Amino acid sequence: MAVQQVDGKIPRSKENDYTLEEAARRREFLLERTGVKLEHVAEGSFDPALAQGNIENFIGVAQVPLGVAGPLLVNGEHAKGEFYVPLATAEGTLVASYNRGMRLLREAGGVLTTVMDDAMQRAPAFLFETARDARAFSEWLDEHFDEIKEIAESTTRAGRLRDIEKYTASHIIFCRFNYTTGDAAGQNLTGKATAVACEWIRAHYPRLEHYFLESNFATDKKSSQVNMLHTRGKRVVAEATVPGELVKEIMHADTELLWRARLVSNLGGFMSGANNNGAHSANGITAVFIATGQDVANVAESSAAFNYGELRPNGDFYFSVTIPSLIVATYGGGTGLATQRECLELLGCYGKGKVHKFAEIIAATVLCGELSLGSAIVAEEWVKAHDLFGRNRP
Amino acid sequence: MAVQQVDGKIPRSKENDYTLEEAARRREFLLERTGVKLEHVAEGSFDPALAQGNIENFIGVAQVPLGVAGPLLVNGEHAKGEFYVPLATAEGTLVASYNRGMRLLREAGGVLTTVMDDAMQRAPAFLFETARDARAFSEWLDEHFDEIKEIAESTTRAGRLRDIEKYTASHIIFCRFNYTTGDAAGQNLTGKATAVACEWIRAHYPRLEHYFLESNFATDKKSSQVNMLHTRGKRVVAEATVPGELVKEIMHADTELLWRARLVSNLGGFMSGANNNGAHSANGITAVFIATGQDVANVAESSAAFNYGELRPNGDFYFSVTIPSLIVATYGGGTGLATQRECLELLGCYGKGKVHKFAEIIAATVLCGELSLGSAIVAEEWVKAHDLFGRNRP
Amino acid sequence: MAVQQVDGKIPRSKENDYTLEEAARRREFLLERTGVKLEHVAEGSFDPALAQGNIENFIGVAQVPLGVAGPLLVNGEHAKGEFYVPLATAEGTLVASYNRGMRLLREAGGVLTTVMDDAMQRAPAFLFETARDARAFSEWLDEHFDEIKEIAESTTRAGRLRDIEKYTASHIIFCRFNYTTGDAAGQNLTGKATAVACEWIRAHYPRLEHYFLESNFATDKKSSQVNMLHTRGKRVVAEATVPGELVKEIMHADTELLWRARLVSNLGGFMSGANNNGAHSANGITAVFIATGQDVANVAESSAAFNYGELRPNGDFYFSVTIPSLIVATYGGGTGLATQRECLELLGCYGKGKVHKFAEIIAATVLCGELSLGSAIVAEEWVKAHDLFGRNRP
Amino acid sequence: MAVQQVDGKIPRSKENDYTLEEAARRREFLLERTGVKLEHVAEGSFDPALAQGNIENFIGVAQVPLGVAGPLLVNGEHAKGEFYVPLATAEGTLVASYNRGMRLLREAGGVLTTVMDDAMQRAPAFLFETARDARAFSEWLDEHFDEIKEIAESTTRAGRLRDIEKYTASHIIFCRFNYTTGDAAGQNLTGKATAVACEWIRAHYPRLEHYFLESNFATDKKSSQVNMLHTRGKRVVAEATVPGELVKEIMHADTELLWRARLVSNLGGFMSGANNNGAHSANGITAVFIATGQDVANVAESSAAFNYGELRPNGDFYFSVTIPSLIVATYGGGTGLATQRECLELLGCYGKGKVHKFAEIIAATVLCGELSLGSAIVAEEWVKAHDLFGRNRP
Repeated sequence: MAVQQVDGKIPRSKENDYTLEEAARRREFLLERTGVKLEHVAEGSFDPALAQGNIENFIGVAQVPLGVAGPLLVNGEHAKGEFYVPLATAEGTLVASYNRGMRLLREAGGVLTTVMDDAMQRAPAFLFETARDARAFSEWLDEHFDEIKEIAESTTRAGRLRDIEKYTASHIIFCRFNYTTGDAAGQNLTGKATAVACEWIRAHYPRLEHYFLESNFATDKKSSQVNMLHTRGKRVVAEATVPGELVKEIMHADTELLWRARLVSNLGGFMSGANNNGAHSANGITAVFIATGQDVANVAESSAAFNYGELRPNGDFYFSVTIPSLIVATYGGGTGLATQRECLELLGCYGKGKVHKFAEIIAATVLCGELSLGSAIVAEEWVKAHDLFGRNRP
Repeated sequence: MAVQQVDGKIPRSKENDYTLEEAARRREFLLERTGVKLEHVAEGSFDPALAQGNIENFIGVAQVPLGVAGPLLVNGEHAKGEFYVPLATAEGTLVASYNRGMRLLREAGGVLTTVMDDAMQRAPAFLFETARDARAFSEWLDEHFDEIKEIAESTTRAGRLRDIEKYTASHIIFCRFNYTTGDAAGQNLTGKATAVACEWIRAHYPRLEHYFLESNFATDKKSSQVNMLHTRGKRVVAEATVPGELVKEIMHADTELLWRARLVSNLGGFMSGANNNGAHSANGITAVFIATGQDVANVAESSAAFNYGELRPNGDFYFSVTIPSLIVATYGGGTGLATQRECLELLGCYGKGKVHKFAEIIAATVLCGELSLGSAIVAEEWVKAHDLFGRNRP
Repeated sequence: MAVQQVDGKIPRSKENDYTLEEAARRREFLLERTGVKLEHVAEGSFDPALAQGNIENFIGVAQVPLGVAGPLLVNGEHAKGEFYVPLATAEGTLVASYNRGMRLLREAGGVLTTVMDDAMQRAPAFLFETARDARAFSEWLDEHFDEIKEIAESTTRAGRLRDIEKYTASHIIFCRFNYTTGDAAGQNLTGKATAVACEWIRAHYPRLEHYFLESNFATDKKSSQVNMLHTRGKRVVAEATVPGELVKEIMHADTELLWRARLVSNLGGFMSGANNNGAHSANGITAVFIATGQDVANVAESSAAFNYGELRPNGDFYFSVTIPSLIVATYGGGTGLATQRECLELLGCYGKGKVHKFAEIIAATVLCGELSLGSAIVAEEWVKAHDLFGRNRP
Repeated sequence: MAVQQVDGKIPRSKENDYTLEEAARRREFLLERTGVKLEHVAEGSFDPALAQGNIENFIGVAQVPLGVAGPLLVNGEHAKGEFYVPLATAEGTLVASYNRGMRLLREAGGVLTTVMDDAMQRAPAFLFETARDARAFSEWLDEHFDEIKEIAESTTRAGRLRDIEKYTASHIIFCRFNYTTGDAAGQNLTGKATAVACEWIRAHYPRLEHYFLESNFATDKKSSQVNMLHTRGKRVVAEATVPGELVKEIMHADTELLWRARLVSNLGGFMSGANNNGAHSANGITAVFIATGQDVANVAESSAAFNYGELRPNGDFYFSVTIPSLIVATYGGGTGLATQRECLELLGCYGKGKVHKFAEIIAATVLCGELSLGSAIVAEEWVKAHDLFGRNRP
C-alpha cells in the first residue's frame, strides 16, 4: 500500500508550487495515470502565482463561458445608475432571461435596492456538565462581552464582533458570534477571531467542559432557517412596481395571471418545505458568483429568498425579493484573480468600500430574473408547449 | 427613454453571434460604456461556436483556478478504482482538505458508494373550482397514467416518465412528474415533456380550470424538504469504516472526540433548521460542478445531505453521507465545453452511460471532505487557535 | 430506598382496579401524602369500569367546561346540513369566536368539505451492513408486498395496509406502513400490525441486521413536513366563498384588508418555519377533541394547516383550509366514554361509518374559526386597542 | 333564511348566562334540535359562574378520566422532592408508561430540571412603502424602546416587555414583542399590551403605512422553527444519567440498543422535518394540560422538543429533553376551575409564584415518558409482537 501511495501521489513542489512548470508537471502526471491530456485546462492567461491562497495542486483553469446582461437600472443607496452584469454559466437562455427582465424593470423605472442587515458568523458550542451550568455560563458570557469582543477583534483589521446570539438545548450553549467584516465575505476572519475568543473563554471559565468551534449553527455552506431569520452575509431587498401594460408588452404576460401563479407558488413553497418561495434566484447569483470570484459553494445559503408581491387594483404589480443570506466580497478570496477582478471592475465593484454596492446589484439582478421566469411560466412556456405538442403529434 | 435604450443595448448579431468578432465587439462596447478593458476574459482557448446553447451575449470566459485531489479510492458499482478529482475553486485549503480526506479513506480501504434512486421532475399545479373536483382529477390522472406517459415521452429520447406524485391543498393538485433522464441532468427534457403532457391533459379534461407548469414543488434551484425526502437527480450514499488508529495518525484527531462533535452537530443542524447535518458537502460538490460543466446553480439542491455515523466499541468509526438531490450530467449542458469535457474525461466520465459513475465519485469525494473538516474541527483548529492566541498576546 | 418506594407507591388493585373504591383509596393516599383533597375530581358521573383501557391509576375526572357553537352549515359528502358543535375549553371567547364564524359562513351558504386522503402509519426502520444491502431489501420489500399485507392484516379487522413508502439514508430504509383504519384513529392497530409484519420480515430476510418498530417517520404526536406532505389520519379541505358585503356586515371587516393580512401572514408563516400559515386551527380542533374523546395529544400533528385564499375582483373572498393530518376516531379509544359519547352523538357521529363525516365537521368548524379570527385581527382588535389606549392615557 | 336562523340560534341570556338554568335550557334546545340528551354532560359539580371568562354557551362539562403517576423525584430549582402527577387522558397505557419511567428515574436519583428562558410574545407586522422606509422604522423602534415599553406595560400588572426581536422581508418589519408574564401564560396580556403599543407607534410614526397586530411570527397555537429557536413560554431542560444496570432491571432494555435507536430516531426526525426528535412528549404534556386547566391548544407549540443523549463508556446513559416552547400557567385562564385547581394543588403549584416549579415538574414528567417509550420500542414491543405473531398464525 505504501508503495502504491508513493506512485499515486500528486507531484508537488515544496519550494514554489505556483508556477507554470509545476502545473505542467501535474498535468503530465495525470496524463500518465489516466491517459487524458488537459490541453484547454492549460490555457490560463494569468501567472499561477496569483492563485496562491486560492487553490492547491494547481493544474490550470476551468474556462466557464461568460455573457453579459444589461443595462440594469439600479436605484440603490450604493449602486446608482446602469450596470452591465457579467454572468458565467453553461445554462442556455439564462443570460437572455435575465436580460429580458432587466429590460422590463429599466422601462419600469429601475430597481430599488436596500441592504437591511450585515453579519457573518462562526458558531461554537460550549458544553457543560448540566443545563444549569450552561445557563450560568450564558450569563457570564453576556457580562464579559466587551472583553471577548476585544480579544476576538485583536486578530483582524476588518472584523467587528457585533453581538453573540445564544441558543440552548441540553447542557449545551450554541452561540453565533456575529461580525461585520468590511468588504471581505469574512468566513476565515470570523473563524480565526472566534477561535481565539474561545480559547480565552476556556482559559477564563474553568467549569467549561468542552467546546467545538463549529456546531452547525453558522450554517456555512448549508441552507437553514436560522440564517433565513437572522442574516448571514448581507440581507438585501430589491423591489419594483411594474405597470400591467409593460408586462403585457415586453413579457407577453398578464399581471393578473402572474399574480395567481405567485399565490400557487407561495403555497407550493410552503408545502414543499423550500428555502425559497420564488423562482430561480440561484441562477443569477451563481452566474455572478463564478464571474466575480465569490466562494460559489455559498450558493447553498445564498439561494434562500423570500418573494413578496402585491397586485394593485389598477393592474400594476409590486414585486420584491429579499435575499436573507447573500454572501459576497469585493476584496480577498477569489476577487483578485484575473478574469474575476475584471468582472468586478466592470461593475465598479472591485476593492474596498464596494461590497454593499455589489450586494445591491446582485439583488437587482435577481429581481429581474424572478419577473422574467415568472412571466415565462404564465406566458411563453405555454406557447412553446403548443408548438411542441403540434410537432410531436403526427 | 427609447433613445437611451438604443444606446445602452448590448450589440448582438442576428446571423451568427457565436464568433470571436462578436465577443470582441461586445467587449469593445463595454469598454466604451464602462471604461473597463476585459483582457483576461478575452483569453478563452476555444471556438465560441462551442458555447452556443450554453450562453448568450458571449464575451469570453471566466478562468477559475483548477486543482486536483487524489487518488480517491472508490468501491462503487459504477466507479471502481482510483480517481484524480478536478476541483475548480478560489477557496484556499479546499483542495488540500479534500486531498487529506482522500488519503485517509484510501488507507482505510476506500469508499463504498451506492446510487439509491434517480429522478428528475417538473411540478405542474392543476387548479379546479373545488377540492372535490381536484380529487376527481387526481383519480382520473391515475387512470390515464399510461397515455400521459406516452405523450410525455414522445418529446424525448432519454426521458422516461416513472411516476406522478401528487400533493393536495385547497382546490389544487400539485404534481411531481418524475422522470429518469439517462446521462443528462434533464431539467429541460422534463420541462418539455411535462409541458406537452399538461396540454394533453388540458385538452382531455375539460373541468380543469387552469394549470401552471411549475408550482414550486420541483423545487429547481432551491433546497427543500420534499427533495430531501423524495430525491431530485441522484440519491447517493458514500460510506466507510475508518480505524481509530488511522484517524489519529493521519488526522491527528480522535474518533471519540469526532463522534462527540458529530452528536453536537446533529443537534445543531436539527435546531437551526439546516438542509444538512454535516460539515461542508457544498464545497466539494461546487468545485467538481464548476470543473465539469454542471449547472452550478443546482448547488442549492445538491448541498443537502444526511450524515450518519456510528462509533464502534473498538474505536472504529463508521461514517456515511447521503446526498438526496445530487443533480449531475455527463452529457448535454455544459459537459461538452472545452475544459469541462477534459475534466470529465480525467474521471472517465464523459458521455453516455457514465452518470452513475460520476455520481458515485462525487459522493465519495464528499465523504472524504466531511471526515477531513470534521477532524480539523476537533484537532488542528485548536492548535491553530493556540498559535493565534499566543501570537496576539504580547 | 426500597422502603421509601413501598411507602410512596400508588395503591392499585390487581384484581379489579376500575372501581369507585379503588379511586377513592388512591385519592385517600394522595391526601395523606400531599394534604390535598380531590373533591371535584371525585365527582365523575360514570362507572369507572367504562374507563378501563383508557387510563391507569384512575382517581376521578377532569371536568372541562363545555360550550356549544352553531348552527354550522356543512355541505359535505358525509356531513350534510346543520350541526351544533360541542367545544371543551377553558379559553374565553373561543366558543364565541367560532360561533361568529359559523354565522358568517352559514349566511354565505355553508362550508364545502372534502376528505382528500386517509392513512395512518407506523414507521419501522430497517438497518443493514451497507447501503447496497439496504437497497436490495427495498426491492425485496416491493416484491413481497402482498405477503406482508396479508400478515399485517391478519392482526386486525378494520386495518388495511395500503402501501409502504420508503425513505433511505445511509444503510437504513425508513418505511411508512400506511393503513386505512376504518372508524378508529388506528395508532394501536397499525402498531400491532406492523410489529407482526416486521417479525415476519426478520424471519424471511436474513441479511437484515436490525430493525426498530418506530423511527420518527410516523411522526406520532409530533408535527412534521412528511405528514404535511403525505397525510396522517385524514386530509380534509374546507372551502367557502364569502361575499364582501357579508364580511362587512357580520365581521365589521373588509375583504381587501383581510386579504392583505393573509398575504402578510403567509409570508410570516413561511419565514418563521411554522407548520401552519393560518390563524388558530388548533383552538377548534383541541376543543372538539377534548369534547369527543379523541387522543388530544394528536393536536401536535392535527394543528398543521394550509390556508389558501383568493380575493375575487368583485370583492368576494374565496377561502379554504386544508388539514393534512387530522387524527380522528368515532369508535374505540375515548369515544365511548360518558360525556364524550354524548358529544359525538350530538353530531350524529358516534360509532361505525361516521369518521369521514366527523372529519368534515371539524374541518368546517376550523374554517369558521379562521375567518373569525382573521377578521378580528383586521377589525375589532383595533377598536379594542383604541379603547384600551384611551383608557390608559389620562 | 332569516327565520331559519332565528329557529337555529342557540339560546342565551343577556343578563346572566352562567347558571345551571341557562345550561339546562341550552341542553333542552339541543335535545329538540338533535334528539340527543346530554345526561353526563349535565353532571358538572361546580357552579357555572366559575366558568365565566373560560367558555361561552356553557352546557356542562366534558369528563376526562384522570389518573395519577408517581412518585416523580425532581431536583429542580423550584420543584424539589417527590410529586404525584395528575394525567387526564383517554389513551390507555399512557399513565402506566409515565409511571414506569418515573420509577426508573427515581431509582436513578431523580430528574435535574432547569428553566433556561421565559418569554411570551405577540408579533405585529409593520408595513411601509419601501424596504428603506422599513429599515428606518426599525432603527426608530430601537431608539424608542423605553417609551414603547412604558406604554405596553401600562396595560398590565404582571407583564414586562423584555425586548423586541425584528425580522425583515420586503417592505415589512415583523416584530416579536417578548414579555415575561409572571404566573399567567400571558397570551391575552401580551396581546393587549402590544395592541396599545402599536397604536402609540402608529400615532408617533406617520410614515407607517399599516400594521397588523399579528403576522404569524408569534406563532400562537402553531409549531414553528422560530419558537424552537427563541422560546415561547418556558424553555425547560430535564436531564438524568441512568445506570445501564437499572435500565436492564426496570425496563428490560439495554442502553446500547436504546442508544442505537436514538441515533436512528435522530436521523428520522431530521429527515422527516419533525418539530421533535424524541418519542412522545406531547402525551405527557397534554395529559397534564387537561388536568390542570392549561390552554390545551398550546400543545401545538409545546409538543416541540430536542432530545439529546450520550452513551457513556461504562454503559450509563445521559439523557435530556429540552422543551423550547412550553406554555404554562398557574394563575388565570382555566387554572381556577374546580378539578383543575385541585390538580394544581396536588402538585403544590396553584397560584402565584409557582409557574417555574410547574414547568420543571412537566419537563421531568416528559423525560420519564421519553425513557419509558424509548425502552419499550427496543424491548417489550418485540416481545409483544412475538406473542401476536404466534397467536395469529394457526
